[in-house]
Amino acid sequence: MEKNSAVLQEIASILERKGISRDEMEGMLEIVHPVDLAFILEDMSAEEKAQVFRLMDLETAAAVLVELDDDATRDVVNALPQDLVQRILAAMSADDAAATVRLIAEDRGRDEALEFLSRRQRSEVKELLRYGEQTAGALMTTNFVAVPAGATAAEALKALQGAVRSNTVIYTYVTDASGVLKGVFSIRELLKARPETPIAEFMKTEVLSVPPGMDQEEVARIVRRYTLEAIPVIDASERLLGVVTADTILQVVAEEAGEDLLKMAGAGGLNVFADPILRRVFLRIPWLLPPLMGGLIVGKIQNTFAGFNAAEFISLVLFIPVMMGTAGNVAVQSSTLIVRGLATGEIKTSRVLGILAAETGVGALIGLVCGLLIGLVGLLFASPHIGAIVAVSMLAAITAAALNGTAFPLLLHRLKADPAISAGPFITALNDITATLIYMGTSLALLRIFG
Amino acid sequence: MEKNSAVLQEIASILERKGISRDEMEGMLEIVHPVDLAFILEDMSAEEKAQVFRLMDLETAAAVLVELDDDATRDVVNALPQDLVQRILAAMSADDAAATVRLIAEDRGRDEALEFLSRRQRSEVKELLRYGEQTAGALMTTNFVAVPAGATAAEALKALQGAVRSNTVIYTYVTDASGVLKGVFSIRELLKARPETPIAEFMKTEVLSVPPGMDQEEVARIVRRYTLEAIPVIDASERLLGVVTADTILQVVAEEAGEDLLKMAGAGGLNVFADPILRRVFLRIPWLLPPLMGGLIVGKIQNTFAGFNAAEFISLVLFIPVMMGTAGNVAVQSSTLIVRGLATGEIKTSRVLGILAAETGVGALIGLVCGLLIGLVGLLFASPHIGAIVAVSMLAAITAAALNGTAFPLLLHRLKADPAISAGPFITALNDITATLIYMGTSLALLRIFG
Repeated sequence: MEKNSAVLQEIASILERKGISRDEMEGMLEIVHPVDLAFILEDMSAEEKAQVFRLMDLETAAAVLVELDDDATRDVVNALPQDLVQRILAAMSADDAAATVRLIAEDRGRDEALEFLSRRQRSEVKELLRYGEQTAGALMTTNFVAVPAGATAAEALKALQGAVRSNTVIYTYVTDASGVLKGVFSIRELLKARPETPIAEFMKTEVLSVPPGMDQEEVARIVRRYTLEAIPVIDASERLLGVVTADTILQVVAEEAGEDLLKMAGAGGLNVFADPILRRVFLRIPWLLPPLMGGLIVGKIQNTFAGFNAAEFISLVLFIPVMMGTAGNVAVQSSTLIVRGLATGEIKTSRVLGILAAETGVGALIGLVCGLLIGLVGLLFASPHIGAIVAVSMLAAITAAALNGTAFPLLLHRLKADPAISAGPFITALNDITATLIYMGTSLALLRIFG
Repeated sequence: MEKNSAVLQEIASILERKGISRDEMEGMLEIVHPVDLAFILEDMSAEEKAQVFRLMDLETAAAVLVELDDDATRDVVNALPQDLVQRILAAMSADDAAATVRLIAEDRGRDEALEFLSRRQRSEVKELLRYGEQTAGALMTTNFVAVPAGATAAEALKALQGAVRSNTVIYTYVTDASGVLKGVFSIRELLKARPETPIAEFMKTEVLSVPPGMDQEEVARIVRRYTLEAIPVIDASERLLGVVTADTILQVVAEEAGEDLLKMAGAGGLNVFADPILRRVFLRIPWLLPPLMGGLIVGKIQNTFAGFNAAEFISLVLFIPVMMGTAGNVAVQSSTLIVRGLATGEIKTSRVLGILAAETGVGALIGLVCGLLIGLVGLLFASPHIGAIVAVSMLAAITAAALNGTAFPLLLHRLKADPAISAGPFITALNDITATLIYMGTSLALLRIFG
């Protein structure tokens, strides 16, 4: 069973006691999962965090440090003596150590960050730091098991048994003398083989792999598509560099989907719980400029209504909010469906025109329903002329909104830009302007016809 | 390497040829992954799909059928003779067969759907169908390996080697005579143990588990939190029912994040690419009613401005769109950050008040910046009075928007409702009304002060 928050709170209060002994700590660690411990520690002061870390053995300290969020990791690194941090990092796998060093480097620069590594680890981690963030190279673990192509099942099993620090035992990779990836077999296939069987008999030689520079979103797409437990990373000469495992991909998928959500709301890159207030203010303001400018333009357009006589102006102005609001929501619905479809790969490029036509059709039908509704309101509370004007405008504005909302993200995708950024602020602003122009144009035309 | 789309297109054209022989098909299947084959088949007619399925061996047919989307699965089930479908389902694991039967049951009812199963499979699948959709019970596989607590490492290894259809070999579960879960060990721990070691020596007795009725989102949260490869499902008497694996969770996480995105846009439950047009229209219209009503109310409130003299009215009305638009975007930013934080578990319930205060503070600072900007516009293009009115209103409206956007999803979460549904249509409508009321109130008050 998962630890409930009451239990966690109790543990927290014990840990916060000043004089906790190493023995008590050991007893505690036996019952608390490193993830839960990290969760508890994140709420403590830097000094308290350091105190708990001093009482842990290095293996546990490494396991907990990996689970801490960025701010808590900084606290621990800054509060502990450098040689203790070095010993904790030495107990981590190279990829986990690289992630921590990446973080230290943000504050102190790369050279000082590398000082936190033992000489043995330094070259391996340096290698990993070469890859850009959010690429396959940055995600991969280098603790995989590889055996030569000539091995037997018994030898492969022995290699697996000896791989103390391996992060992944589900697949064993087969490489030649220069490390070139030749094949792969699963632990299941290995277990079923007789000991003397050469692995060449059951290994798969068609191996899905990715280059180290591939973006993590693309890696995640492949792993999901083929339901893989892990995917190897190979360089240009097909040498095996590392392995990205499914649990890493799980974090990536969760992060990326969340990132899309925040981007669409004009809050991309924000961490509401960790970022300082001023950063949160200044990251959000740029995304408010499109609606700000859009709103002023809409106001300016509305100004033209002032050319009518006051009674007509007032009646017509009353319907602007409902027109803008409803059309805006239709545009957001359409754009979100498209952004989502592009992210999951459900939208195939060959079908773009069909999707555009279908979404616009859906928009027109929605426009018809909403137009009739609002036309009825206009008819009952203003006049038949006003009713006709708002009904026609609503139909046109909503159809245009569906078209906007569909075409804009598809266009961005075509231009290799991120479609998620368009959905919120830009489409809403664009759409407010379109809706107002349509409403005004319809009003002018119909008022002339009605005389 | 992943197959690129040119290769896939070529394969598609070969498959679509009328006279493809069983031999040609076998050659094809050796080079095409079932996932890719499913992808190609989805674009074909029902008859073409059935033709390809007839040429596949049962194992492959089962692997491909599992990968097809719902509509394509329906095509295949309807176009093939029932006894062939039965043989294909018999080649699937019980949980995959249950998923297909669930789908058939939607069209033909549960009893007729069960006819597609062999007698041997029927009772096992019936058992699985008892669990609600999107629960741990519906996600779990029943093909796990369990060994008695008294076994040795050698015996456990033998059990694993004999588990032909097991979906998960990473963990082996330990149960007593009545199937009660007693422990778990990983394949890694097993490989390291000497053959004669009793498994009791290395198995973990503290096992994280979930009940079959737990919602899949909650299961996913636990699996992600503890970076598990699999989690066991146990009933009320702690009997092991099945295992949910990480690759299933990967699909769930991707789906749930996408579902949140669509819900927030008022497009929840929609599948833009498969649903018929009318369904898409009628599922979207309800989410347009809040902005529709909101817009009408805002119009009505604006009507009160008509009480002022015409010049003042026109100047003030011009700023309504920018006020509503900008505040609306701030509310969407805040609510999205909160919905996301609740989904990832980053928002701890103990910190709710702090988050509310911080977000409102952020809102006030954003309001200050936007208020000064827009006040300047008012000052330059209208009058100092108008400038002051719009500046103060903007500050107040944006602060209120941040408060609305933060409090509303937190409140829904507190009431055990889904916070994602609030973010789009409801908050925007609520916010348009608040912003207009604030603007009007400020205008009335300041115009009185200015005389």
